[in-house]
Order: sequence, then C-alpha cells, then structure tokens
Amino acid sequence: MYIDHPASYTDYYELTMAQGYYLAGMHNKRASFDYFFRKVPFDGGYVIFAGLKELIETIKHLIFSEAEIEYLLKEGFSEEFIQYLRSFEFKGNIWSAREGEVIFPNEPVLRVEGNLLETQLIETLLLNILNFQSLIATKASRIKYAAGENSTVLDFGLRRAQGLGGIHATRAAMIGGFDGTSNVYSAQRFSIPAGGTMAHSWIQSFDDELTAFRTYSEHYPKSTHLLVDTYDTLGSGVPNAIIMAKELREKGYELRGIRLDSGDLAYFSRQARKMLDDAGFPEVKIAASNQLDERVISSLKNQGAPIDIFGVGTRLVTGDNSPALDGVYKLSSVDGKPTMKISENIEKITLPGMKKIYRYLHDDGSFYSDAILLEDESLLERMHHPTFPAKKSTLNGRKFEEILIPVLKDGQVIFEMPAVNKIVDYKKERFSLLQPEYKRFDNPHIYKIGISTRLMETRDNLLTFLKQ
Amino acid sequence: MYIDHPASYTDYYELTMAQGYYLAGMHNKRASFDYFFRKVPFDGGYVIFAGLKELIETIKHLIFSEAEIEYLLKEGFSEEFIQYLRSFEFKGNIWSAREGEVIFPNEPVLRVEGNLLETQLIETLLLNILNFQSLIATKASRIKYAAGENSTVLDFGLRRAQGLGGIHATRAAMIGGFDGTSNVYSAQRFSIPAGGTMAHSWIQSFDDELTAFRTYSEHYPKSTHLLVDTYDTLGSGVPNAIIMAKELREKGYELRGIRLDSGDLAYFSRQARKMLDDAGFPEVKIAASNQLDERVISSLKNQGAPIDIFGVGTRLVTGDNSPALDGVYKLSSVDGKPTMKISENIEKITLPGMKKIYRYLHDDGSFYSDAILLEDESLLERMHHPTFPAKKSTLNGRKFEEILIPVLKDGQVIFEMPAVNKIVDYKKERFSLLQPEYKRFDNPHIYKIGISTRLMETRDNLLTFLKQ
Repeated sequence: MYIDHPASYTDYYELTMAQGYYLAGMHNKRASFDYFFRKVPFDGGYVIFAGLKELIETIKHLIFSEAEIEYLLKEGFSEEFIQYLRSFEFKGNIWSAREGEVIFPNEPVLRVEGNLLETQLIETLLLNILNFQSLIATKASRIKYAAGENSTVLDFGLRRAQGLGGIHATRAAMIGGFDGTSNVYSAQRFSIPAGGTMAHSWIQSFDDELTAFRTYSEHYPKSTHLLVDTYDTLGSGVPNAIIMAKELREKGYELRGIRLDSGDLAYFSRQARKMLDDAGFPEVKIAASNQLDERVISSLKNQGAPIDIFGVGTRLVTGDNSPALDGVYKLSSVDGKPTMKISENIEKITLPGMKKIYRYLHDDGSFYSDAILLEDESLLERMHHPTFPAKKSTLNGRKFEEILIPVLKDGQVIFEMPAVNKIVDYKKERFSLLQPEYKRFDNPHIYKIGISTRLMETRDNLLTFLKQ
Repeated sequence: MYIDHPASYTDYYELTMAQGYYLAGMHNKRASFDYFFRKVPFDGGYVIFAGLKELIETIKHLIFSEAEIEYLLKEGFSEEFIQYLRSFEFKGNIWSAREGEVIFPNEPVLRVEGNLLETQLIETLLLNILNFQSLIATKASRIKYAAGENSTVLDFGLRRAQGLGGIHATRAAMIGGFDGTSNVYSAQRFSIPAGGTMAHSWIQSFDDELTAFRTYSEHYPKSTHLLVDTYDTLGSGVPNAIIMAKELREKGYELRGIRLDSGDLAYFSRQARKMLDDAGFPEVKIAASNQLDERVISSLKNQGAPIDIFGVGTRLVTGDNSPALDGVYKLSSVDGKPTMKISENIEKITLPGMKKIYRYLHDDGSFYSDAILLEDESLLERMHHPTFPAKKSTLNGRKFEEILIPVLKDGQVIFEMPAVNKIVDYKKERFSLLQPEYKRFDNPHIYKIGISTRLMETRDNLLTFLKQ
C-alpha cells in the first residue's frame, strides 16, 4: 500500500472544505475535477504518465480510522461530520490515461466524477502520487532515449532520493525505460530486477586493489563487475581487472564488467576498452556512473565513448533541474453545470465541463495531435488552438483513439492495473509512436493540442458570464 | 517507523559486499565510516543537520524478516550468510551532531564504528535519510530567514513533494524554522501544528464568491481566512472579504485573514492592506502563496509588501534548484588502521581515521571556525587549511565545544532523541550563533574549517604510501 493512513495524507484544507460542504448540505452535489499539468518539465516535448496504480489503491483504502477520527475531534471538527466520515468510502468514477501513456500539457489526463466531498477530498494525494511518478518516468524516458536501446540504464538513486520518494522513483524509472535498479526495496515490491556489486569501501577494506578484486571474484565468479577507479583507473584499476579476467577465464568464468565512477568518462572508457580488447576481453562490459543525465550521456555517445551500462542516480530520482511536475486538479463542473477558474494569466484559465481526449493519428499510426472535447461529443471536423481561436486544424476523416479509459466506476475498480513490466511494454509501444522531433532535448517541437468548437464556446460563454 | 522493511531499503551492492565480507571471514574487522557532504546546496553558507531520529530508529529496526530472507535466497545468496543475517542486529557505535545543528562541508558530522559488515550495510539508508532532511531543513531555514521572525511561514508542499518524501519534508521544514504545515499526515506523526481553509474549488462550488465566503465563515467563524483571487482580487475578492469581516464583527467574531495566490503579490498585498485598514480591519492578516522561495520573499520584503504569512510549497519541499544534498559515507579506518579514498579530484580525497569536530567560538559565543581532529587528540594550538597547508590559524586558548555526541553505543541508544519542537528550539539557538555574513543568499562568507596537524600528517603519509 502507498501509505498507511491515506485519509490523513492530505492538506488540511481538504478537510475543512469537506466539512463545510457537509454542514452546508452541499456534499452530495455531483462534481467533476480534471488532473492536468501546464508545463513540460526539463524543457522537453512530452510527459510519461505514471502513478495510476498507487493512486487507485490509495483511494480504495481511503477510510477514516480511529487515529484520524481522534485527530479530527481534537482539532474541533464536528461530531456530525465525523460521524459521516466513519463510513466514508470513495464511490465516484475515474477515467484516466493508462500508465506509460505519452501525455501533453493542459490535457485532462485524468477525470474524477462523484460527489463534491469525495472528489475534493482526494486532491492532495492524487497530486502527490501522479506528479512525482510522471516526473520521474519522463526523466527516465529521456535518459533511456539518450543512451539508446542497445545500452543499459540502471537506477542508482536511492541514497540521494528525496527520502521515501526513492521507493516510487524507482518504479517510475522502470516505466520510463530503465533496465534495472540498485534499490532492493522497490525491486521486491514491484518485481523489478535489482543488482550491484561493490563500492570503493570494498576495495579500501583490503591491503591492495588486486586482493580486493580477487576476493570478490572468488565469491561471485559468475557476476563480477569491478570498480576500477579507487586508486588509479588506467594505472592499476584496469590492469588489475585484466589480471582478474585472465584468472576467471582459467577457472572457466568470464569477467562481466568494469565500472568507472570518476574522471573523464569518455577518455577512460576508450582507453579501458582498448586495454580490455587488446588483452582478449572484448566481451567485458564497461559501466559508468557519476552525475550522469540525458545530456551527459548524449555527449558521451557523441564522443563515441564505448560505455555499455549507465548508472544514473541523483539526476534521475530527483528530476534534477525540474524537481516537480506542476500538475493541478481543477473543478470543472458542479451539479451538471460547467465551471472554470478565471485567472490574471490567460494560460491559467481552466477548461469547463466533463471532457475527454481524442488522439488523432498520422496514416502510419504515429501521433498527429490531440483534441480535447466535451464528454458527449463524438466526431470532430476541426479543432481550435486553446487560446488563439483563429488557428484551427481540420480533422475530417482522420483516425483517432480515445485516451481516457474508465478505471473506477461507483468506487469499484473496473480496469485491471497492469504490473510494472506490462506498463513498460505499453510505454515503449506508445513512445515509438511519438515522432523524434518531440523527443529531442533542445527546442523540441510542440505537440499540437486543440479544443473542440463546442468546448471553446462553452468556455467563452462562461467567461463572459462570470466576468459580468 | 521510517520504513517497514529497513533491511531491504538499501542498494543491492551493500548486500553483495556484506556477503563478501562474511564469506571472506572479514566481517568482524572493526571499521569506521564518516558521513559528510561536500557542497552547500542553494549556493548557501551552511546546512542544518536533520534526520538523526529517523536514522537511529531505522537502524534499531534493521532486521532481516522472512520477506528479505526469501528474496535473498531467490537471488542466490548463500545459506550460510543468510543464516548470519537471521540474527543480524546493528551493534555498533554512532556519534553524531544533534539535529538542528549548523554544519559545514567536509566535516564528519556523523561517525559510525562497528564491524565492517554492519557499518557497510547501513550506508544507503543513512544517506537517504540524512541527505534529504538536511537539505529541506536548510531550505526552510533560508526561507524563514528571508521572511523574518515576525512573519509566519507555512509548508504547503505535499501535493508537489517527491511522493512519500513529503512526509519528512514537512518534519525537516519545521526543524528549519517553519511555523506550521498543511500536511495532516506529518502533523499527526510529528505533533506539529497543521492548518488550512479553502481552495479555489470551494469558491467555484457556489454561484457567487460572497455566498462561498459567507458559507465558510458561518461554519468557521473563529478561523476564517478567505481566498480572494478566484475571480478578481481587488474588484471582488477583497471587497467581499471586507463585507464578511463586517458581518463577522457584528456576530462578535473577527475575520482572521485573506490569502493571495496569484498576480503581483507586492502590489495586491499593498492594495489589499489599504482597503482592509480603511474599512477598519487592520488586524486581518494577509497571507500569500504561489511559487514562493527565499529570494521571492526577500524581494517582497524589500518592496515593503505587507504580507504576514507566507505559504511555501514546491520550492520548499523539493529543494527546487538544489534537489539533493551530496552527502557521502566514506570508510575512514579498518582494523584500527586509517584508510582513505584517493581521487583524481583533490576535493574528493577523504580524511583518514576516527575523527571529531571542535567548534571554536568568538568571545560572544558565536561560531568562529571548526576544526577536524583525530579522535584521540585533545587540545589544538593551530589548524590547517585542508588542501592548502601553508594557510593556518592559531587556536590557542580559544573556547570550543565538541560537535559530535555519542548516540548509539554497542547498538543501544544512549541519547534521548528530542521531539521536533525541541529540535526547533535547538536549531534556533544554534542558528543565532552563526554570524549574518554566512546566512546571506549571494556570495555568503565561507565558514573556516581546518584540520589538525596530526590529521594532516596522517593523511599525507597515507597518500604517499597508497600512491607508491
């Protein structure tokens, strides 16, 4: 389970509002909320959606236990409201994009519908779960993209993760395309492959490097990866690794790899590759770590660095320069009536009403553009730029698919949440349908998102009405 | 408890190394490790140490349960080693700075001593816990410093926190100087004050803003804070808040505050203050939120913005542009012999041996400089710059205090971990002894750290020996 007391994993104001709705007799009004983000992190062109499974599990376990009840009583919440909470269960409906989906800004990628109280109450936990996992899945996807399908990328981030955030950072990294992790906890919990061999302290615990290497390979002859930069990478580390490769081969084993963790990785990897090849060990893999991210890996690739395995830590699990996805959860209808938030900033004006997303495709199946339309619309002839209505695109006859699927109906799970390895496959498939210009790191092409004519009119009429 | 399965909350290589030490018969060698960081985050001048309580609790609960045993068997770990793990308990010693202490780069602020296996095994969880909480306590301290003692700073970050990292972000924020949080979970768990009132969705759920305000204040007459920017801050939000302030006063209550969450906070707060004052409500507080951090708050302060309460979210709980503290855990002795890591980068060369920290004081008790010395040294006449030995300072006769205190002895807790509110007091007291030039945001003065003559000689001799 994501959290032991989900009902308290929330902002205080969700509870004051919930009580307010209850005491004002408004809690049973129907309401809908949208989850969407506004800005693509990392100055990138897309986001990978993740965290749905934990979200749904958490909502299913969202009850007010004695601990919460006691707290609320102490805080002065009313007996009457608390009585209501004692039997609280989320009975609403949720439509969502699948985990691993490629998503874009301002799209309602998850929609919640239910009574006003229950739909409000889940806001904070929903944002906490989806924002972070989607952020890290996206970062991981970028790193894997830089490394290429033939390289292995491993998550080494637990020690620098934001506390317990490390647990789901690893899950999200796998969804984004990572091949494995050092994080044993998450490996067990999400059935993902974990591995690791030695730190510098292992080498330092012995009188000399060669003895350290030899002792390790005696105990792990089938899986020896040697860390070669403790004293002098090319002067002792790699030569000692070659000695071990020979000793292992004499015993019928093969050295699996070496790891570089400092210095100029392009230079050292090239030299090490040559030394290993010259000694007859072209199969020994070279792993590299140390402050890697998608840009460093791209640069290493461009320099032709013969690195097979990239270990990525801090800059993966924290999101580095974009440590949060700015996802929000906005009310879109109450009592069947569309509602919206006006803002001084045009881009913060929300889209009213219950909505869905159609993804239009090129003839080869790759993504052409997304359209946001009202829930009861079906076919679109054209769509409009969200803030510049004169700009439109014709959609007539183009193939499309629906992005949101129903996952919770009257509080019951109606979509079987796939395991991480299945989500990985789905992400891979979907990501392959996104054209390369949206994937590049510098000035990626902006994916086209439009809104239907009816949605535009609904918004503009409501804006005029609310501004009166 | 920090984590339900602490033994698996680790990097895989800690386990392969542990098994290696065990199978090689080396696991009972005595070893010591240092925890320290290299670079002050946020380009700042200091760090606030936090996370010790969770670390010690986690180590005390570090056992291998059936789930871990099963996993290790499946992964091919040896029966013999697993047998050893079945009765594993950490029996080592830990000395540490207190939580809330002001600490500086390259100081061993926590020292672990025990057998090689147990001291190695706790590396990942130690780093995970201390790095993150110290990071956020530091960020919080900067934000509180910018806001000033007379302003209130509140943590609003859970929705943008890095998943479950939000739990301890809130704890750390309090240690750093925050006054409260919106995070109910952490408020309950760490006995800290929580609060909150309404989101934009509350306002939107009503036909008009005034009805929304009125309904809220009917149910919360003693604690009404009104969010005034949903439609038009100065055109409707503040005027409606003033109507409510009058209605409340008629009933014998006072409106507590208003909150601005968008637009130019300097301008809006000044206008709102004037409108409230002119209407006879000078006691109504003004709260502000929206992408705040220490620099924005400083700027608002410099502009004379009359904001009483700052709600800080994303940029507090993620550390924003410095999302990780680069703390490391390095072997410093094995079998009583000092050891160190050599590196291509001078600043990554570690300090060998069991060490302690003396903090030297100015006559007024404020911090003058820290010295790192070997554990068995007592008085220092002088200290040396760590990498530029010709630079020395005389310490003769200067008062000092010892920074590390024993917290775990043979696996037993011998220091009573204070509750968060006590740590808050300690941080406040210590922080007041740090002179302002180290606290400023731009080019803070660099706090002087030296090493003893004997430590320098130990390091230099060992370096010569290892490089032979």
